[in-house]
Formats: sequence, structure tokens, C-alpha cells
Amino acid sequence: MTSTAVPPQTLTRLPVYARVLDDLVRRGVVTASSVELAAAAGVESAQLRRDLSHLGSYGKRGVGYDVAELRAQLRGALGVGRRRGVVVVGVGNLGRAVASYAGLVPRGFEVVALVDVDPQVVGTTVAGVEVGDLADLPRLVAEREVSLAVLTVPGAAAQDALDAVAASGVRSVLSFAPRALTVPDGVALRSVDVAAELQILSYYLPPV
Amino acid sequence: MTSTAVPPQTLTRLPVYARVLDDLVRRGVVTASSVELAAAAGVESAQLRRDLSHLGSYGKRGVGYDVAELRAQLRGALGVGRRRGVVVVGVGNLGRAVASYAGLVPRGFEVVALVDVDPQVVGTTVAGVEVGDLADLPRLVAEREVSLAVLTVPGAAAQDALDAVAASGVRSVLSFAPRALTVPDGVALRSVDVAAELQILSYYLPPV
Repeated sequence: MTSTAVPPQTLTRLPVYARVLDDLVRRGVVTASSVELAAAAGVESAQLRRDLSHLGSYGKRGVGYDVAELRAQLRGALGVGRRRGVVVVGVGNLGRAVASYAGLVPRGFEVVALVDVDPQVVGTTVAGVEVGDLADLPRLVAEREVSLAVLTVPGAAAQDALDAVAASGVRSVLSFAPRALTVPDGVALRSVDVAAELQILSYYLPPV
Repeated sequence: MTSTAVPPQTLTRLPVYARVLDDLVRRGVVTASSVELAAAAGVESAQLRRDLSHLGSYGKRGVGYDVAELRAQLRGALGVGRRRGVVVVGVGNLGRAVASYAGLVPRGFEVVALVDVDPQVVGTTVAGVEVGDLADLPRLVAEREVSLAVLTVPGAAAQDALDAVAASGVRSVLSFAPRALTVPDGVALRSVDVAAELQILSYYLPPV
């Protein structure tokens, strides 16, 4: 399978399907219909069948999908089992939460470097990793084989952090900064914006 | 405008547009074309025009959109200016990060309650708010007019936390737990899964 086979919108749903399959394997379930899988994933079954067809998985009429086989295909597509090095940029509460987050390792990620600009924080140890100086980022990225960065810096520092990360050779970045960033050429950026998520939720609430 | 006027996919982009407009107002920009707005928001201009048409905003041919007017429409649709009370459930590093996050208040959210189950944490003060016991959630929700909850508990505790939040009358929940949750009737749930975001990003990386 080439890396262009899966449309971006489908790609965002694959981790959800992988999680559902993990659950089923844990519970000893051997086969599952598209309707059952879709319900557990919170999507329409036609959507799920279309998404999985991009992986070459079609299920059998009247039987459904082989849970173990489908899980293996999803894990292969998502690179689970490989190990990706992650640098966390910004070691405040959020950076500490990401660095300490036990859910990364089972899905193939390891926080191998932490950096900050605060001299009070540089040199301390968080989740077993010594915090380095942001200025050392290029060396840390090379030595520790970092392939992804998580930006947990204040909004005002986010563009500089993104530029520094890109200059150090990291090409995949997840930002928690609540602002639009100018993305350097060749870099893939995804953003998590907590206030935006709350705004979307509150649209459905009665007016206050 | 009724609350059913905006399709869900459009709704997820409105906070991004609102942020772009905030930026333009700060920079003193008076009008902007759909192409400029779309570029700043990272979407196609046809998409942006379609999204804004759901708010009744069309722009003028050859002139573009009135920045101040469009911003006011977006803020109205998203409820900016109202104040929504938020409870944070789980006061670890991530809960502390959410409670301390300065980006919430400007977008209309205030963390008015924190709860945990750990007796070591209950009674301490975080970001100016005393941490309550999870068992006190119904009282806190009623007294402090909580309308949204953020779940920052470990994955294994997330379903119980969601059920407790729903039982206390909160109808909008943002979960950071990396697992599929059974959503109680009448509750709107959105999820942020850091490992899933990294999986999506790493799909485009060269194999390791």
C-alpha cells in the first residue's frame, strides 16, 4: 500500500477503528459486522465499509470482518509496532501531561526529548527524561531520532517553536497552541484547540 | 438563526474562522476576500464561502467580507461574550493545564469547579479553585451553573466519570480519554486523543 492510498478524512477515523478492534480482541470477539463496528466507532456503517475498503478490507457478506485480521491491517496502516521518537516542546502542565501519558507507548510513540526555554526547568527530569534547552533541539533531534514534535508552549511562543522544530528537521508537528500558525514547507501540522472544542460543544447548549 | 442551521462539519470550522477574524481586527484590516480568509484558515475558498453562507454572510463581489461584521456574526453564532461554566474532572497534570489555561476566558469559558477522587488532591487549590470530591459533583454543577465538563481522568476511569457527569445534569462533555465511551442519552461528547493525532501525523512519515 502506498502512503497516498488513504484519503485524509478516512485517515482521521482509522485510529478510532483501531481502538474499537483492540477492545474486541481483548473481549475475545472473533468476527464483527460493519454495523457493530460502526456503532462502536460512532459512524455510519456505509462510511465504515467505505473507509475500510481503502485498506483492501471488505468483510464477508453474512459473516462480517475477521477481527484479528482487520486489526492487523489497521495497525499496519497506522504504523503501530514501529517506534517513533517524540519531542515535547514546552514543559508546563500540558507538556508534563503529554510526557507522562501512558497511552503513547502502546501506540508506538515514545517521548525521547523534552525542551524548554526556562532556566528553572532546563536540567530537571520529567517522566524519566532530562529537560534540554530549546537551543539544543537540532542535536537532540538527531541523536535521539525524533520524528514528531508536540508543541505545548504558550500561544505567543508557538510560531517560534514551530519554526525551531522545522529547522531541526522534524516534519510532523502536533500543536496545542490556540492560534493559526504559518506552516513551514514540508511540515505536516495538526492542531488541538481546547477552547474551539468547547465552542463547538456549546453551540448546541441553550443560550445563557 | 436557529441552532440547527449550521451543519456539524461547518460548525467545526467556525472557531478557526473566528480566530482568523480576531487576528485581522487586531491588525486593523477592514475587508478581506474569501481567498485571503481561506488561506489564513487553511481551507479552500469555495469551502469557506459555503460555510459562511450558513451564517447568512455572503461577502460583496470585488470587495470581499466586512471583517468587523463577519467577526460579530461568528461570535454570535459561537456564543462568544456569554459565559459558560466548566467543570474539570480529574486534577492531574492535564487537568491542571486545562484549569490554568488562559485561552478559555476570552472565548467565553470559565473553569468554576474541579473535582477528583484522590483525598490528597481534594481540598487543594488549583488556579484559584478549590478541588472538590467527585461525589459532590451534582451540588457543584447546580450551585456554580456548570454547563460543560472536561474529562482529564485516566482511561480506565473515563466511563465512570462520564456517567457521573451526565447524572449531575451536564450535557456537553470534552474527553481526553483514549478510549471509546458509551455516551448517555442527551449528552454531546467530543474527544481529543493525543495518540490518535500522532498516528494520523505519522502515517505520512517514512517507515522506520
